Amino acid sequence: MNKVTKAPHFTGNLPEHLQQVRRLLEKHAMATAVPPQQEIPGAERQELVDILLQKRHLNELQDKLDELYPSDIAFILEALAIGQRLLVWDMVKTDRGGKTLIKISDAVRGSLIAGMSQEELRLAAGQLDTDEIAALAPDLPQSVMRDVFKSLPIEGREQLRAAMAYPRDSIGALMDFKMVVIRADVKLATVSRYLHRFDDLPDHTDQLFVVDRDDQFKGVLPLSKLLVNRPETEVAALMLTDTLTLRPDDKAHHAARIFEHYGLVSAPVVDDEGKLLGRVPANTVLDFIRVEAEHDVLHLSGLQEYEDIFASVWKSAKNRWLWLALNLCAAFFAARVIGSFSDTIEQFVALAALMPIVAAIAGNSGNQTLIIAMRALARGQVTPGNTRRLLAKEFSISLLNGLVWGGIAGGFAYVLYKNWPLALVITGAILLNLLLGALVGMLIPLTMRKFGHAPVIVSGVLLAAITNSGGFFIFLGLASIFLIH
Amino acid sequence: MNKVTKAPHFTGNLPEHLQQVRRLLEKHAMATAVPPQQEIPGAERQELVDILLQKRHLNELQDKLDELYPSDIAFILEALAIGQRLLVWDMVKTDRGGKTLIKISDAVRGSLIAGMSQEELRLAAGQLDTDEIAALAPDLPQSVMRDVFKSLPIEGREQLRAAMAYPRDSIGALMDFKMVVIRADVKLATVSRYLHRFDDLPDHTDQLFVVDRDDQFKGVLPLSKLLVNRPETEVAALMLTDTLTLRPDDKAHHAARIFEHYGLVSAPVVDDEGKLLGRVPANTVLDFIRVEAEHDVLHLSGLQEYEDIFASVWKSAKNRWLWLALNLCAAFFAARVIGSFSDTIEQFVALAALMPIVAAIAGNSGNQTLIIAMRALARGQVTPGNTRRLLAKEFSISLLNGLVWGGIAGGFAYVLYKNWPLALVITGAILLNLLLGALVGMLIPLTMRKFGHAPVIVSGVLLAAITNSGGFFIFLGLASIFLIH
Repeated sequence: MNKVTKAPHFTGNLPEHLQQVRRLLEKHAMATAVPPQQEIPGAERQELVDILLQKRHLNELQDKLDELYPSDIAFILEALAIGQRLLVWDMVKTDRGGKTLIKISDAVRGSLIAGMSQEELRLAAGQLDTDEIAALAPDLPQSVMRDVFKSLPIEGREQLRAAMAYPRDSIGALMDFKMVVIRADVKLATVSRYLHRFDDLPDHTDQLFVVDRDDQFKGVLPLSKLLVNRPETEVAALMLTDTLTLRPDDKAHHAARIFEHYGLVSAPVVDDEGKLLGRVPANTVLDFIRVEAEHDVLHLSGLQEYEDIFASVWKSAKNRWLWLALNLCAAFFAARVIGSFSDTIEQFVALAALMPIVAAIAGNSGNQTLIIAMRALARGQVTPGNTRRLLAKEFSISLLNGLVWGGIAGGFAYVLYKNWPLALVITGAILLNLLLGALVGMLIPLTMRKFGHAPVIVSGVLLAAITNSGGFFIFLGLASIFLIH
Repeated sequence: MNKVTKAPHFTGNLPEHLQQVRRLLEKHAMATAVPPQQEIPGAERQELVDILLQKRHLNELQDKLDELYPSDIAFILEALAIGQRLLVWDMVKTDRGGKTLIKISDAVRGSLIAGMSQEELRLAAGQLDTDEIAALAPDLPQSVMRDVFKSLPIEGREQLRAAMAYPRDSIGALMDFKMVVIRADVKLATVSRYLHRFDDLPDHTDQLFVVDRDDQFKGVLPLSKLLVNRPETEVAALMLTDTLTLRPDDKAHHAARIFEHYGLVSAPVVDDEGKLLGRVPANTVLDFIRVEAEHDVLHLSGLQEYEDIFASVWKSAKNRWLWLALNLCAAFFAARVIGSFSDTIEQFVALAALMPIVAAIAGNSGNQTLIIAMRALARGQVTPGNTRRLLAKEFSISLLNGLVWGGIAGGFAYVLYKNWPLALVITGAILLNLLLGALVGMLIPLTMRKFGHAPVIVSGVLLAAITNSGGFFIFLGLASIFLIH
């Protein structure tokens, strides 16, 4: 367990690095694009100059890339179009390919792996720790994984098998095995001597993990305690035993919340029998939180996942289909509702102009309720005891907003059409549809709470479908009762 | 600079703590609610029992709260209705009030501060570090801040003045002053002896900061290097000098991206003359990232900020008005567009039923483009050189989606109305409106890029307004040309 990676340290600013790489790529492209001028005397010399020029830019580019960390390279690769991306990738994949593949987004990883030989993939995987190999495994061909597995020492094989057995959203999948383990019955001086045998400590080592002879987890010794206390003190006297432990089967969300909440740097992972399995470092959790937050934003906008903006039209189009298909169904249902009132509209065509207002405003308002309710549920703020009160509150807000904005809409309608009954119908319809939006916005997450993390993408479409069709039905229904004689 | 706080350590699970607090509060409420039964003999004794019972529950509650950390208490306070919240707050505000106020969300903080006396607020602020006081300052009355300022030592006053001078979204506002500072020309043994004089090291101390006599920043010494190297080595030989430094005027976003990108635990903040001012620890950045990500989701849903779900109806309603008002204006504009085609609709009422489909699907599709473009811009993936290509790609996706989904919509329309021209008009209108959505979805963020973080809330409304009105105009326009004779 004394495998060690270098802590990244950073000079300068990422967009600036990206700019420099772009400039060098353009210079190289321009040098390459000059046609060999065979008619002119001395053409051969000219050609040679061109080739040297191309080489110089490529060398400069290689130098530039050599000073970057894998996460920088990942960032830059994502920002480059396919041709340039593969050129840069060729220059880094041999020595930093593995770490870069770990850092890059799912959408772009495929485009890089597709162009690599089995041998190159084996080399890339060889640069990784077992927990990282496990993370990359779904994207690697089976035959490569078999070879990688065979090349590992027994301990590594066991770790890899363990890490791959956990689902992607579990603590087990975030866990790594790079930790420093000590015994409780030794003095701090002994611990210090032990640490001197390392070349470096693993990243995010803020504490040492204390276990007994059977690998049973006993507690943690923060480095700060090691540093401020007297060397003759025993570990047992200083170690924290009431520290948080994670289980490999826990949801990764759970760890994310705890790391955020307590600002942890690392946490031990322990199995049901109390055996120390590994640790979760903060950077892995941070990555997980970032990706999750991004997914929420993408799902709210009807995208299934983040797109490689340089990917093919076909691939991007498919990423957007689920949402469009759902919405088309909902829109058709709404169209059927309107269609059933075609006599009413024929008699009073102003209804056609005003009905989208009723649908739109309730859709927005219901969406607000939906998000508030989803957040409150996720934070455990909603209990069986206060659900009714919260529903009453959302209804009151909708009542208030219905009177205010429905009233304003009614006023406008009167100015346009000089028809009091019409103005009252639109005010009433907005009020009723806002109440419907609040009801649906609360009920969707309450009904879905048993599924854990509620599927944002479906909730939004469902809400829109109900407030649209409902709005048309309420408005045209009221109109056919009160306006058509 | 040797001020120290205890690292939080955690036993158990947060929703469970919340449950326990809720149960105790309910028992207390029930005990309080029992009316004194004065008609029955022995009533006085009964009353005493009731009072004892109430007291017992309150004592249990106090014990429970005493074992929780400020961030736990903040979480629990947010999940309680106003009455219970203030009861719990009374039990914790004296000894952990300050730290809890720091951890709680903006929406709930106000409700707690409103009920505190000036003296209590002074006490709460007295429990905080200067950087935390600065963060709380906007919510505290001026007179309290004056007293707090006077009570600080000179160094603290300077730090507070400095921290308050920086805007809320700058590195300066995230900075703290709890760091261990050493010189370059000493041996590791001397550093170790120096550290032994501390009771504990500040949270998130993963490295020591090296400065010269004039406080000029020279580099950092990671604790891991201190622990693995020989005591007689000089700091100068081991310290990292090419480490990342932040400036207090930099945007906090900048730090957030760097911490995420490199998985840092802390980073030094240095002024223009190279003087070390403070450090930014990872937990502060993590908080910032979380709040920002939450704001993005809230803004996408048309909420200005996170709501205290137990706040008054009036307050919550106002939080939702901006979005509703903007949408109402947009919807009215769309209504005017439809109104100008009332003759066409009168002649062919099926148009009224079908027109929302055209608007809805292009709004969704444009929103997808908008989010992709905003993300790509934020990551520096869009350059003047490739803007045209990306626009062409989004157009191609819309063309493809227009043919697919427009075709499906046209097919359905034919099934419903048995009218080929109508089916072709709806297909054409969806195709054109998807192209409009792609254009607007790209142009809005490109135009707004100079404002930095593009205002999500406005972009969404603007896009919806254009695709709605545009959709009605295109569909009804095509219909009045091709369907009405």
